[in-house]
This record gives sequence, C-alpha cells and structure tokens, in this order.
Amino acid sequence: MQRIDLNSDIGESFGAWKLGNDDALLRVITSANIACGLHAGDPGVMRRTVDTALAHGVAIGAHPGLPDLAGFGRRRIVITPQDAYDLVVYQVGALWAFVHAAGGRMQHVKPHGALYNMAAEDAELADAIARAVRDVSPELILYGLSGSELTAAGKRIGLRTASEVFADRIYLPNGALAPRSGGGIIHDPEQATRQVLRMLRDGVVVAEDRHVPVMAETVCIHGDTPGAAELARGLRERLEREQVRVCALSIE
Amino acid sequence: MQRIDLNSDIGESFGAWKLGNDDALLRVITSANIACGLHAGDPGVMRRTVDTALAHGVAIGAHPGLPDLAGFGRRRIVITPQDAYDLVVYQVGALWAFVHAAGGRMQHVKPHGALYNMAAEDAELADAIARAVRDVSPELILYGLSGSELTAAGKRIGLRTASEVFADRIYLPNGALAPRSGGGIIHDPEQATRQVLRMLRDGVVVAEDRHVPVMAETVCIHGDTPGAAELARGLRERLEREQVRVCALSIE
Amino acid sequence: MQRIDLNSDIGESFGAWKLGNDDALLRVITSANIACGLHAGDPGVMRRTVDTALAHGVAIGAHPGLPDLAGFGRRRIVITPQDAYDLVVYQVGALWAFVHAAGGRMQHVKPHGALYNMAAEDAELADAIARAVRDVSPELILYGLSGSELTAAGKRIGLRTASEVFADRIYLPNGALAPRSGGGIIHDPEQATRQVLRMLRDGVVVAEDRHVPVMAETVCIHGDTPGAAELARGLRERLEREQVRVCALSIE
Amino acid sequence: MQRIDLNSDIGESFGAWKLGNDDALLRVITSANIACGLHAGDPGVMRRTVDTALAHGVAIGAHPGLPDLAGFGRRRIVITPQDAYDLVVYQVGALWAFVHAAGGRMQHVKPHGALYNMAAEDAELADAIARAVRDVSPELILYGLSGSELTAAGKRIGLRTASEVFADRIYLPNGALAPRSGGGIIHDPEQATRQVLRMLRDGVVVAEDRHVPVMAETVCIHGDTPGAAELARGLRERLEREQVRVCALSIE
Repeated sequence: MQRIDLNSDIGESFGAWKLGNDDALLRVITSANIACGLHAGDPGVMRRTVDTALAHGVAIGAHPGLPDLAGFGRRRIVITPQDAYDLVVYQVGALWAFVHAAGGRMQHVKPHGALYNMAAEDAELADAIARAVRDVSPELILYGLSGSELTAAGKRIGLRTASEVFADRIYLPNGALAPRSGGGIIHDPEQATRQVLRMLRDGVVVAEDRHVPVMAETVCIHGDTPGAAELARGLRERLEREQVRVCALSIE
Repeated sequence: MQRIDLNSDIGESFGAWKLGNDDALLRVITSANIACGLHAGDPGVMRRTVDTALAHGVAIGAHPGLPDLAGFGRRRIVITPQDAYDLVVYQVGALWAFVHAAGGRMQHVKPHGALYNMAAEDAELADAIARAVRDVSPELILYGLSGSELTAAGKRIGLRTASEVFADRIYLPNGALAPRSGGGIIHDPEQATRQVLRMLRDGVVVAEDRHVPVMAETVCIHGDTPGAAELARGLRERLEREQVRVCALSIE
Repeated sequence: MQRIDLNSDIGESFGAWKLGNDDALLRVITSANIACGLHAGDPGVMRRTVDTALAHGVAIGAHPGLPDLAGFGRRRIVITPQDAYDLVVYQVGALWAFVHAAGGRMQHVKPHGALYNMAAEDAELADAIARAVRDVSPELILYGLSGSELTAAGKRIGLRTASEVFADRIYLPNGALAPRSGGGIIHDPEQATRQVLRMLRDGVVVAEDRHVPVMAETVCIHGDTPGAAELARGLRERLEREQVRVCALSIE
Repeated sequence: MQRIDLNSDIGESFGAWKLGNDDALLRVITSANIACGLHAGDPGVMRRTVDTALAHGVAIGAHPGLPDLAGFGRRRIVITPQDAYDLVVYQVGALWAFVHAAGGRMQHVKPHGALYNMAAEDAELADAIARAVRDVSPELILYGLSGSELTAAGKRIGLRTASEVFADRIYLPNGALAPRSGGGIIHDPEQATRQVLRMLRDGVVVAEDRHVPVMAETVCIHGDTPGAAELARGLRERLEREQVRVCALSIE
C-alpha cells in the first residue's frame, strides 16, 4: 500500500499579527512545520502551535528560516555554511524545548522559504544544514525538495530524508515550479490528486510534454493561498479513496 | 570542606560587536552563563562560546534575557508570567542544542539583567521561570539571588537551586546591593575574599552595622568591570588558600 | 460652531503580516497616526500608508512607539527621558521623510501604546517627548490624553496640543478608562455620540455618578475592534447632524 | 588647487556594544557617514554621533544599510528596487531629524556595506536609491564607488555625486579591490598618499601593470582596521603638504 505525508507551514503569526489558517489545516495535514522565531513565530506562538498540533495528533517539525522578520524569510541572504549550521541548531533547539516541555517528540526539520530554496541548490549549504540537524538529533527526518541538494546532503550524512512534491503547482520541464503568477497554481482538487497519484505510482510529474522524475514522500500544502484547506481536504479524501495511506512519516 | 562556585556572564558579543573578556574569565570561573540571542549573543557567538567553555572545563548554563538587544536586557519590560515561561523555554532550548551538538551537558539556568531582578521580587514571574526550567529539564540547577523569590520558586517546584552572592559589591542593611555609583564596588581582592568567607562560614554579610543573612552557593563575577578577571583570580587563589573548594555545582 | 477631529492608528501592518482596516477607516477619520517601524509598520508599509492617507485627504501624524515588535509597543519598558527623546526624534524623522517625499506635510505626533500611557503619567518622560517633537518641528501638534502630563508638557514648551478623548470607552470617576474586559466598551453609536457631545459642549464626561472634566479636541477611533469603522461612521454622521464640524486640527 | 574629501563610517555602536574609534577619526576626516539604526547605530548613538561630528566641524551624511543587525549590513539580501527606495527614505529621514534637531545640515548619503556594493553593480537598485535621496532632498550629495552604477544613477536624476576611491587598498586591473586577505591592504601612509595623488592628478590608479581610470572626489577611510586613524592622519598631512585642499564637498 502506498503512503504519503501531507505537510504545511504553520505557527507563522507574530505578536499581535495573525497569519494563516492553522486550525483548519491541522485537521487535514499529517505533519506540521512550525516557525521558530527568526522569520515568523514568537515564543508564545510556538508554544500554542505545538500544543495545538499535539492535540490534533499531527507530527511536529521545526521550520527554521533566515533571520528576517520584515522579509518573512523569503528574501535570499548571502550566508556562509557555518551561519546556516548555527541558524538551524538555534531554531531547532528552541522548538525542541517547547515540544519536549509539552511531552511530545519532534519528527522532522524543514527549512523555510529562501533557506529552503538556497539549500536545494547549494551543496555546501545543504551539507551544513544536514549536519546541524544530525548534531541536534540523528533521529530527525530532513525534509527537502525532491531531487534537491538538501535531500542528497541528508542521505550522505545518514539522516532519514523526505522528498517533497507539490500538489497545487504546475511543474516545468526542468523540474522547477512554474511561477504562481501566470497560471502556475492548480485549484482543482481532482487535477491535484491526479498529479500526486502519478508521482506516487510512476515517480514522474507531467511538465508540459515531458515526464520529470520525482520522488513523492511528502506533499506540501500551502496554507496561505485562499481555499488551501479545502483543496487539501479534497486531496486527502481522494487519495484515501484511491487506497493511499495518508499519515506522518514517523508512523509505522 | 566548604565549597563555592564562581559564575560569570559570557558570550555577550553580537555580530560584529565584541563584548567582554571571555577568554580571561573562562580561566578562572567554574560556571558560565551564556547569552541566548534575545538580549545578546547570536547563534554563531553561542556556538563558539559553548565550544570554548567546554574546552576550559567550565560548566555551562543558559542565560536567558528579555527580548531587547538595544537595551541589553537591562531595561524592565512588563511581561506576563506566561511570557516569561515562553521566553525561558525558547532560549534554554536554543542553547541546549549547541551544548548537545558539541557533546556537552547543560548545568544550569540563570536569568539575565532585568529578568533576574524582576524574578527576584515577583513570585508569579519566578514560578513561571522555574516551571519553564523544570519543563525543559528537571536536572537543571536554577541560579537566583540569595533570599529571592526565584530560588524560593525553584525549591517549591523541586529544582535544585543555587543562591548567588556578590564578592565585589557592598550590601545594604535590607539585603540589596549599594549602587555602583557612590562607592558600591569592592576593588580589593582581600576585602572581597573576606566578604565571601564570612558569607560561606557564618551565612551573613556585613551591611553597615548589620549582619544580613545570606546563603552563598555561587559567587557572581561581573566580567564587564575593568580588572574583573584579576579580581576574580585574586579571589579564587585566596579562597583556595583558605581551604575552600572552588568548583562548579554539578561536580561531586 | 464646535469642531472635533477624529483620529485613528493606521499603518500597523509589518512585512507579510496585515493588520487593521485602514481603507475603511481612512474614509471616516480626519487624522491618521501612522506607525513608524519600531512597534509596527515597516518602511514599505509607511510609504504606502502615507500615500493612501494623502489620497483620502486625511491629515498625517507620526505614531512613535517603544522598540518592541513582539509586544506591539503595548508593554511598558523602563526607559530614561533621554531614550524617549531619541526614540521620538528617530521615528518622527523617518515618517517625515516619507511624507515629504510624497509632497505632503506632517500635522501631528501621537505616541503609541505604552509610550502614550507612560507619557500621560510621567512628567519627565512627557517633557522629553515634547522637546523631541519641538526639535523636529515646532509646527507639529502634540496629541495626548486629555488632562495628561503629555499635553501639559507640550503646552509648557510652546507646542500646540490636542486633548484626546474616547467615544467608545466607559470612563471611571478618576478619569481613567474602564477596562475593555468587563463592559468597558461602548458599541452603540448613539451612546458614543452622546458621550462626545457632552464632552464637547459641557467639558465633562459622565463616569458612574460623577462628572469628570475633560477637554475634547480629538476623538480616538480604535481601529482594531470589530465594527470600529461602522461605529466611527455612525458617530461622524450624528456629530455632523448636530452641527459639529468634523475636521483635522490643521484645517482652518 | 586640487581638493579631496576624507570620509569615514562612524556611529556604528549599538546599545551596550561599542565599535570604532570615532573620536580619533573625527579629528582627521572631513565627512562622516553615520549609521541609521538598521545595520548599526541606535537612536541614542545617532544623536551623540551627530553632536560630536558637529562639534568637530565634520560634514554629516546618512549611511543607510540593509536591515541586518546580526550581519552588520554586510550580507547581501535580495531586495527589490522599491525596498531599497523605502529603506533609504526611512533611514535618511531618521538621521535628518537628529541633524535638524541639533541645528545642523545633512551634506550627503552613502549606502553601507552590501547595499553599497549592490548599488554599484545594479542599475535599477542604484536608480531607486538615487530617487530616494532626491525625494528627501535634492541638495544631498550621493556618494558612490568611482565608476559605479550608483554615481551614474545619481547624475541621471540630477543629484550632485561624489566618486569614492580608496587610499588603503590595492586595486585590481578590472577596477575592483583586491581582497583584504592576501595583501590587499596598504599600511604605509607614503604609499597610500602616492596612490591618492596619482588618482587626483592623473585620474588613474595603478593596478598591477595597468592604469585604471578613476575619479577621486572623496577618499574612504576604513575606521575598523587597527591603525586607521594614524594612516588617515599621515595621509592628510602629506596631501596638504602637496598643496591638496582636504575639506568636505559642501565647503566652497
């Protein structure tokens, strides 16, 4: 029986500012990537988000980002691999403490935004991040873009990794995602489900006229697009109808 | 045989800004309070400071502060006990990860600056901080001002605590410290040693014409005053000559 | 003919985080207090908010706050009068540049949150803030709580001041506001209008069984309570029906 | 008679952290670039630095940087031209207010660190920065690397510009600076003076075996290298001995 994990970024509020639709998402996803304070999330938001995720039985991961509140961690900052190591250790540790204090366990680490994108392309940065995750705990699963330097780095260092794919995005023949503007988003749950099933069963995604090989272990659900929770729910129901087991990676 | 711990705040640099005399201090102190990023210390500074403390065999503690880089954590901010809990969990976790990644163990937690002072007086804040420390790890020792609400809160919740006294400061009859300006600082190692010995042997400090009861388990060495490392070295040598064992609290 | 100004805090978004209902408020208020980056508002938000306020013909003021993004400037921080001076000069200057670049003029300065409350009670802090405003431009109007140290300080130093009252809050006999929790908020536009008219015509507000003297030059509209824009619109319409001229203070 | 301006970055302390040797530098330079709070400098540091520069008769400029305290503004952050515009307006306005409050005038704007380097290469970013400076005040002089996109953008928009050269750095044949590590720094005041005189008189710098054309209107003095103030003093004395007038650009 095939299986897939559904993950989403949550806990992205900060102080007086609320963001996202965490409650709706936590009802449908199986793994939560929780912001760690440097691009979003403050200590109070982190604690409450951890508690809510545990209450919903959703597996918890750290979602470390670049130190850039004003840019929400989405702007590339030129950092050294050592900087990346330090930023990841810091943020994973901070979230670990909340998970531990609440009696839970941390399942995974998924870098956020520009750090995720930079780690997908840059082998040295990817190695530093993988080393940081391993040094905090070799049990953690490292999430990264399917086919990226990050999952390769995780494997090299002996971490379990999760290859991430997208249900709601059009792929380009080079394996990248088509821009959101210009029709790059899939809104139809039926089409999203077909794309995921194809990735799961055949290990490919259809990109224009090509079949691009992908490994689908976890599907990213973008929480900040309108209708995201509905799309996710529609996707999950259809996948389960197709006998795909939808559950966190840490579940046996 | 009587014993005492010498602790100091270190790792207070940030980015391009250097502060303190960590290398000299680490040669004489037995426990290091390491800043955790919110009032001082950045992830890189934290990693390097942890490594250096471990190399010197100095016990490591987290030194969580209020989120106020511009004020260095020395300005009181009106926060709720829940805020204090969250801030302490966050920072202790972040430092824990560096200690753990470097193969070390964390010995203690000592709040910094205004948070330390507020927790000395406010029982609710003290309880929240003690709870945060216990929830991250009940093995951690909670450092607080001798006779303060913070050590009382630690004891109530079952934590091991360390009562802190000052070698280089004049005490007032109400147990508070005389202001630095106006002759409140002791510069003579001989006088500092006499004050510590009296606290250790008789459980009192002489404040003007009164004997104020204190419990001396750890002596704070202020690293930011000129000549601090020399004073500390002079104090340590004299204490050892007087058969006081100078070592970290976690040493059996 | 009596006149009154309606002011509201706007431009309180930050980076990816949106807050408030600026567009609806700008259709009904006459003066806008724009956040200046230290408790809310980033440079891009400031520029866009200035442009929108100018497009609506709403007078612009700086809304400087304490440097505390995580606390939204609502937590008291113990600062010196010199700190207050520096924080106000900095923020007023930053907003001034956007107003000037857009071809507008700045009308006023109103401290935000905890800084507003602290300046209402503390004469030294109030003097420092008034001095900062005057040093940037003696033409600026200083907004402060009616009867507060802040408006008194503004007058002492020769600034034009605006005494602020609240339409949607219950007053206590000592002149303070009843807590929001526990029925302290007025939701009925009719009742809010009666309170403002009484303050305008008789210079008093009814607080339980007492008449508390107040000076009503500007009414604060809280933008963050649900229904705030509707309440403000209802208030404005009723005031105008009662022959009160609703306009910015800088309008002759 | 030839003339040259000597400029240096000052006011780079932050809160408890001190940096640089401002007092020594202010005795030898003619123009000061003052940090504006986002990469260094806090409001109190800005006020004190402005006061000191005015007391020494040194011309004042804003030194806006990327919002990155931890990276001291030296790490490239991918921002849009609109972001650059907003960041420059904000910071120039903030410093303007301190200069104005102290009764002074602002002479110039020089972007800091990574923003300076990015603006040297990227015409769109350079245009946005030039526009920001002009919108705050068309009287301001825009400092940029000799031959850079930034000075070109300033000229296009009608600003007076100042072409910056380096006395203490080896140039490469492509006009870039040789890396500091690896012998790229000139420590000998005699050699530094020869380089500046050649740039002033012949409009070239010798780079290995080539003559690279440069325009020398202002010389940057790096304050953070040991011996910088001595080098600067030696350079200034030699230049004056060679009948070069050393003064700020705004001096007639």
